[in-house]
Amino acid sequence: MSRISRRGLLGMGAAGVAGVAAAGAGALATRALIEEPAAHAESTGDPYPFYGRNQAGITTPAQDRLHFVAFDVITSKREELADLLQKWTAAAARMTQGRDAGPFGSVGGPLEAPPDDTGEALGLPASGLTLTIGFGSSLFDKRFGLADRRPAALADLPAFPGDELSPDISGGDICMQACAHDPQVAVHAIRNLARIGFGRVSVRYSQLGFGRTSSTSRAQTTPRNLLGFKDGTANIKLEDTSMLRDYVWAAPGDGPAWMDGGSYLVTRKIRMHVETWDRTSLGEQETIFGRDKGKGAPLTGHAEFDEPDLAKTGPDGQPVIPADSHVRLAHPSLHGGARLLRRGYNYVDGSDGLGRLDAGLFFMAYQRDPRKQFVPIQTELAAKDKLNEYIQHISSGVFACPPGVTDAGDYWGRALFS
Amino acid sequence: MSRISRRGLLGMGAAGVAGVAAAGAGALATRALIEEPAAHAESTGDPYPFYGRNQAGITTPAQDRLHFVAFDVITSKREELADLLQKWTAAAARMTQGRDAGPFGSVGGPLEAPPDDTGEALGLPASGLTLTIGFGSSLFDKRFGLADRRPAALADLPAFPGDELSPDISGGDICMQACAHDPQVAVHAIRNLARIGFGRVSVRYSQLGFGRTSSTSRAQTTPRNLLGFKDGTANIKLEDTSMLRDYVWAAPGDGPAWMDGGSYLVTRKIRMHVETWDRTSLGEQETIFGRDKGKGAPLTGHAEFDEPDLAKTGPDGQPVIPADSHVRLAHPSLHGGARLLRRGYNYVDGSDGLGRLDAGLFFMAYQRDPRKQFVPIQTELAAKDKLNEYIQHISSGVFACPPGVTDAGDYWGRALFS
Ligand code: HEM
Ligand code: HEM
Repeated sequence: MSRISRRGLLGMGAAGVAGVAAAGAGALATRALIEEPAAHAESTGDPYPFYGRNQAGITTPAQDRLHFVAFDVITSKREELADLLQKWTAAAARMTQGRDAGPFGSVGGPLEAPPDDTGEALGLPASGLTLTIGFGSSLFDKRFGLADRRPAALADLPAFPGDELSPDISGGDICMQACAHDPQVAVHAIRNLARIGFGRVSVRYSQLGFGRTSSTSRAQTTPRNLLGFKDGTANIKLEDTSMLRDYVWAAPGDGPAWMDGGSYLVTRKIRMHVETWDRTSLGEQETIFGRDKGKGAPLTGHAEFDEPDLAKTGPDGQPVIPADSHVRLAHPSLHGGARLLRRGYNYVDGSDGLGRLDAGLFFMAYQRDPRKQFVPIQTELAAKDKLNEYIQHISSGVFACPPGVTDAGDYWGRALFS
Repeated sequence: MSRISRRGLLGMGAAGVAGVAAAGAGALATRALIEEPAAHAESTGDPYPFYGRNQAGITTPAQDRLHFVAFDVITSKREELADLLQKWTAAAARMTQGRDAGPFGSVGGPLEAPPDDTGEALGLPASGLTLTIGFGSSLFDKRFGLADRRPAALADLPAFPGDELSPDISGGDICMQACAHDPQVAVHAIRNLARIGFGRVSVRYSQLGFGRTSSTSRAQTTPRNLLGFKDGTANIKLEDTSMLRDYVWAAPGDGPAWMDGGSYLVTRKIRMHVETWDRTSLGEQETIFGRDKGKGAPLTGHAEFDEPDLAKTGPDGQPVIPADSHVRLAHPSLHGGARLLRRGYNYVDGSDGLGRLDAGLFFMAYQRDPRKQFVPIQTELAAKDKLNEYIQHISSGVFACPPGVTDAGDYWGRALFS
């Protein structure tokens, strides 16, 4: 019986890692690559940098697995909350680099104290893990004296027609998005953060996503969602520097200074009626999206990245990309140019007791101001989108994700608490 | 708008596939490799052969993702059921080779008829997909005239102390295990089989597993379960030819001839109280399993694959591997040599509304006769295992998995229906 650490085992026996002989070289490579551009990590499994101006997990090329959790804060002491954010930041800085969760306030030796880390990711590499935190509007109520620091952009969403939101899986004081190439690594990270938060926060809900439905880098191929369509084609990508500036990052003057360099996350769990969809003809499916199912091309074009021509009409005088199609209604030209950085995941939560898969899209979108981006787009979609016959919004959340942690002396939300 | 097929897009744009230029070569490689030994497929993503003496997905090196589904048969016509099994077999033969689900009884052209395939796996390779079917004891009731063909080994399990089984997620007339390296491919396969079965079967329950908790080949490393321990060390592996013969495959004379070359699957959904576990000391955790957490070595040994020495006592005269430890109680020496081929998966189904992760092990084990293998082992574990303080069995299933399909003229269960 011996003390164990994740780093000590890194490179030993993990699938995709060459084995014991490679451990030394692997550790070296990790150090050398930590300053490399983010796109590198996807192919190699090398860690993404934790410290930086913005939080990782937003423009980071969307990893394939998600574990998302919303916490309720159960302590009413502001210092305890700020202390937890420091502990979480330290643990996240370790775990995202492929190390264990770190010291767990052990009092005795290894035989008496719980292990520092729950252990199920021992031997696994960092797997591109990113941890991204967000604060819900309920955190800015009277409990912690933060009311005057609430950004106006963190407004509650209006009720949209057709919404059937379940409060149990909506909202939350704090959210944490764990993304990784390996679900075990994402689950491990959330579990250890929940464990560190024991007595101060409690898990409100958590969601596993098994496949990305967006690309956030031009180096990635476009994945398919559970309706079988390519998703993420017209997304904001990390290479779109000016769009990131205009539509993703909160800038000085937008709101409270503690959010400069942060971003707002809107989450919507959207159930899909896949069985009904699967009995719809290919032609109908393609007119609903306004894109072709095979290649993802707009119905007015030939290749995936052709610009949709919203003005083009067919022989019948009707627009080729129909008036009630998803791509037209969501198009920036209808919303004064407003765009989103979408970063959603497929989910399957088993079946629903009525013989149907309980499956859909866990929609997540980052933006500079939901009032000017998500809200107008969703207002249009909720009113007119033909797709609504096949989907149902069942949860909702809005979170203010602070800027990145700059160095080991900094922590998530420091500017908010100081 | 054009007809689309999964094969036509294979090699195009899928992550891990080199792109358009490689498509021709990829198709060639697929054909050439189809006769290669199964172990090859894990690293390359090449398809596992569908036809063979035994079903794939049992000794196949455990893929990392699972979608398991249990169906209830809702038609009462025997011919309709046999016809469905033929359609399923044809679709499985295609999908496991990276093709789409195949003809969907389209009546019109592509514009009027639903697409043959739901499309979300377009462009993805076979990803090591295996589909394994099993028949539950309820299929042998009066409905289909199969009562006299029910194997005695397909007996209901006894009630074990501590069981809290939920009928909604237990049993089922037919089960289907989809395993793959990519969850999207496993989900796609189950969904298309459910779709083909529309009107004849209905989904009773379905379960996603996100990480394997066993290895079934010596070429694999041992993964960790959600309690952080290496799991699968002493498992039967595909290289253990004589153990497979003695403990996995049903042999002539064991029961009805239609099961020769088949195997019996026991499933148990086992919830883990991870939060409680995570507050238990490392020493306690290790005595509960009788193995060391870091390396997975028995407490009497040094390396993972050292044989546990059940007789060895410590300075206090007590056995080093305690009387109530999991490894001792499950050890073949206590059960007349009985062993299992374990092939379970981690699951996380979100949280439970009480602030805890709803997580655990979807236990699956293949064997020649559950009455002589699972039942005596679980009887011992349920009565004495210290681990019971941290786990709860919440579902149960037993299925007779027929032998493999030998060629395109054969189908799953043909010998049962003829
Ligand atoms: C289950 C629900 C949804 C599905 C299946 C879905 C799917 C798609 C697909 C296939 C595309 C075209 C490819 C692409 O550019 O990514 C698309 C585009 C888009 N979607 Fe959605 N979407 C859903 C919900 C939403 C919601 C709730 C919003 C925001 C309120 C949204 C906003 C957008 C935007 C902004 C675009 C890009 C439009 C463009 O610039 O061409 N989508 N979506
Ligand atoms: C959540 C529940 C369970 C957990 C976490 C668990 C975990 C483990 C671990 C860590 C090992 C040691 C490593 C290995 O040889 O694989 C093991 C061994 C084993 N387990 Fe379990 N197990 C569970 C339930 C069961 C059940 C229900 C059975 C069958 C009734 C079972 C049968 C076995 C067998 C046969 C061995 C090998 C013993 C030997 O030959 O050394 N386990 N299990």
